[in-house]
Amino acid sequence: MNDINGAESLVKTLLACGVDTCFANPGTSEMHFVAALDRIPGMRCVLGLFEGVVTGAADGYARIAGKPAATLLHCGPGLANGLANLHNARRGNTPIVNIVGDQATYHRPYDAPLTADTEGWARPVSVWTRTATSSASVGTAAAAAVQAACAAPGGIASLILPSDVCWDAGGVVAAPLAPTPTPKVAPDAVSKAARVLRSGQPTLLLLADSALEQAALADAYRISAATDAQLLSVVFNARVSRGRGRFSIERMPYFGDAARARLAGIANIILVGAPSPANFFAYPGKSSLPYPDDAVIHVLARPEEDLADALARLADELGAPVVEPPRFDGELQPGSGPLTSESVARSLAALMPDDAIVVDESATFGRAFYPGTVHAAPHDWLQNTGGAIGAGLPMALGAAVAAPDRRVVALQADGSGMYTPQALWSMARERLDVTVVILANRKYAILQHELASVGASAGKTAMDMLDIGNPDLDWVRLAEGMGMQAARAGSTDRFNELFAMANACPGPFLIELAI
Amino acid sequence: MNDINGAESLVKTLLACGVDTCFANPGTSEMHFVAALDRIPGMRCVLGLFEGVVTGAADGYARIAGKPAATLLHCGPGLANGLANLHNARRGNTPIVNIVGDQATYHRPYDAPLTADTEGWARPVSVWTRTATSSASVGTAAAAAVQAACAAPGGIASLILPSDVCWDAGGVVAAPLAPTPTPKVAPDAVSKAARVLRSGQPTLLLLADSALEQAALADAYRISAATDAQLLSVVFNARVSRGRGRFSIERMPYFGDAARARLAGIANIILVGAPSPANFFAYPGKSSLPYPDDAVIHVLARPEEDLADALARLADELGAPVVEPPRFDGELQPGSGPLTSESVARSLAALMPDDAIVVDESATFGRAFYPGTVHAAPHDWLQNTGGAIGAGLPMALGAAVAAPDRRVVALQADGSGMYTPQALWSMARERLDVTVVILANRKYAILQHELASVGASAGKTAMDMLDIGNPDLDWVRLAEGMGMQAARAGSTDRFNELFAMANACPGPFLIELAI
Repeated sequence: MNDINGAESLVKTLLACGVDTCFANPGTSEMHFVAALDRIPGMRCVLGLFEGVVTGAADGYARIAGKPAATLLHCGPGLANGLANLHNARRGNTPIVNIVGDQATYHRPYDAPLTADTEGWARPVSVWTRTATSSASVGTAAAAAVQAACAAPGGIASLILPSDVCWDAGGVVAAPLAPTPTPKVAPDAVSKAARVLRSGQPTLLLLADSALEQAALADAYRISAATDAQLLSVVFNARVSRGRGRFSIERMPYFGDAARARLAGIANIILVGAPSPANFFAYPGKSSLPYPDDAVIHVLARPEEDLADALARLADELGAPVVEPPRFDGELQPGSGPLTSESVARSLAALMPDDAIVVDESATFGRAFYPGTVHAAPHDWLQNTGGAIGAGLPMALGAAVAAPDRRVVALQADGSGMYTPQALWSMARERLDVTVVILANRKYAILQHELASVGASAGKTAMDMLDIGNPDLDWVRLAEGMGMQAARAGSTDRFNELFAMANACPGPFLIELAI
Repeated sequence: MNDINGAESLVKTLLACGVDTCFANPGTSEMHFVAALDRIPGMRCVLGLFEGVVTGAADGYARIAGKPAATLLHCGPGLANGLANLHNARRGNTPIVNIVGDQATYHRPYDAPLTADTEGWARPVSVWTRTATSSASVGTAAAAAVQAACAAPGGIASLILPSDVCWDAGGVVAAPLAPTPTPKVAPDAVSKAARVLRSGQPTLLLLADSALEQAALADAYRISAATDAQLLSVVFNARVSRGRGRFSIERMPYFGDAARARLAGIANIILVGAPSPANFFAYPGKSSLPYPDDAVIHVLARPEEDLADALARLADELGAPVVEPPRFDGELQPGSGPLTSESVARSLAALMPDDAIVVDESATFGRAFYPGTVHAAPHDWLQNTGGAIGAGLPMALGAAVAAPDRRVVALQADGSGMYTPQALWSMARERLDVTVVILANRKYAILQHELASVGASAGKTAMDMLDIGNPDLDWVRLAEGMGMQAARAGSTDRFNELFAMANACPGPFLIELAI
């Protein structure tokens, strides 16, 4: 005899599968799931006031926890509000169990106002999409969702739950499914890459995803040292472990012209989990591709293959000796003088706490941050992987939930931050150790650059659409309005003082850096 | 010889078609559109810091202006952020010309990070979806989009513009297309409805959309007076003109039990632009339908037909004499004593400025507002028509842009307001005459009600997910952080004072009502 309902079978199955954190913004159709979370202990629930916070937090969480969180969203429009950050998570290959409540199966034909094409909206961001149609099948579907989300390289499994399959009795808890094995690359791929590397032609190894983990990077360094191959990561990375005593990696430049300059003379590009490179956007009269026209693209490993294994085997095939990470014995001094990207980068490098998690949505002003922190204390660096802005604050929230013993440093452009400011409230509510640095230039600086680069005049109408001063956003008040302490820094010295203080105190703190 | 690009042909065509307002949140792929707006005078551009603000504003604008605004959104994820309020607009039959920039046609195959299924996300909310593929076709597509958006009952026309079709030369300005005629109902529909009304059986006329305009409502009143038919509108309406000296209409109750009680004994329901009624959500063991099991549904007019004409012809067929609007000679006194829904409703009724536009996303606390303001000064009442919360503040922004000579009063629940708080910044930037009243109960009161109604225990985990205190949101600081003046009212007297002051002063003002 079954005495649990579908919602209870969902919670129990998720817990059995190791999913113990749920970022939620529930509505009426999810009340039985909420009730089940109440009755069954073990799931940490974090409320977001907006769905983009929920999905971005699930992204940041999984990047650090190495396993998926669940979301809880309300019907099609609730899912829609979370799609932009699901898009980013998809581009970062983040595993997420994306749970969306919906109209009862028998109620859907009435087309009540909130009824929408939930499946249709979910599918483009999901590796797996299913709508449960009976309480008895919810558990099985949940276990399959976890399996699908975790299959390499990781993806979004969207499980849509009509309200009646949650409240009906007959729920069945499912056992976890065996993880999908990650395929290893064929021997041929390794020997072909070795042949390219031995040719003596200028060659680039382009790394992404798990190829950026320290063990994999150590093998990439072996290959580079033995063959003079260059190493780059893709432009935007889900997670890079770096800092003093670790292997580091330079990123492909964002703008096509800069990338072309950086890759001048490269004859071969070997992809290791990276897609074939293309510029972020097209520009009139310019190539879509960031590499020389005659460069040849080779694939060592596709994103869904075992990247670390491929690099290790390639290094071995080349007989490449072990390499130590570069040493750095210098001393780092915080920045001083005018507030520039470089001076702030120096401050970040010198004052970053040990084992910090940096969430970088710093846009234009942050250009010096990544290169400038290569010798900082060891840390993880997380970026917006899909280009849909508004990922930074939610990811910082999720990362902090995943690692309560680490300090999260969110480097956040003001324009992008305004897409999901509600994340600050959840940080305050959960008393998370997050230092938010808002880079307040009060304009869409990247777009002013883009407008100039399309050769357009900058008249009042255009500039008004790219200027977010008038009125100025006051991030100190915004933070305080959501229960977070905050202060403004108008100088490098003041920033150094606030940044050190914020990192040393428990709980979240926001610094508005007036740049 | 063509000497304009696709973007310029777009702007000129929109202006030629009478679309002269654009709510925008542009990105890199839209820079040529921004540049064209700069070069060509005549389009008012209003910047939103988040796409949900843009689409909700376009909804509010069209409801008041009676014609569509254009949006300007950035790629698939930018569209996704605007989908929830497009969903609401769709349910309200609001015309919107929804313009979404996207990757260049030849760049799309490279699947750069921001590439997404833009068309797939747009289609479920759109009556018309097209991706332009050459600069020469942009003008034609824009004219077709305006025509499609304006065809009765109104809808969303989504025009997706790859960046190269905007920057390429060869743009051609298109002439406006003839409006799609609104079909009149067949004589048979009128005579059948008349037969039902003459039967003497208890009958309800259920009105929606343009059937709620004063001229149409006058005919509905004639029918009601001549036949004893009852009149109700659907639960959530795009725009109702009401107040002293006008015909008013009661709304169908939101909750199924209340609706069933209200409709007890009804034998016939005649739909006038309304969908066949169904409850907002299903509940275990309860009917999905709000009317008696033996009631018969008849259709006088479908949403896409001429509703006012149908009502006039029906009233004529019944020989119904002209009816005057109900008179009200009483005097309205602002509320006093404890802050309740009823006392605030009295204050709203007494202090509402002439010809105000009320945007109502007041949720649970607002239950007395609509019935309590029936004798207020004449005004329009706008509601969230699709149930995706976060429509209120953006709609208030758009309505104020459409009617610069009228005061907008936004009655906003705090939980819902936090989905799109960025709208406050645009109101401040545009110095719009909006009085925002935040009903701050610091919880998702509707969900606490729903949790109780599903018979669930209210333990700490559940209540934490339905409680948005801890930390308390401080709306005065949030507003000030976005450049808007604000104050808190903790008593009815203080509210009366602030509300009267705010309505009398130019520019926006926010009142946080601590309820």
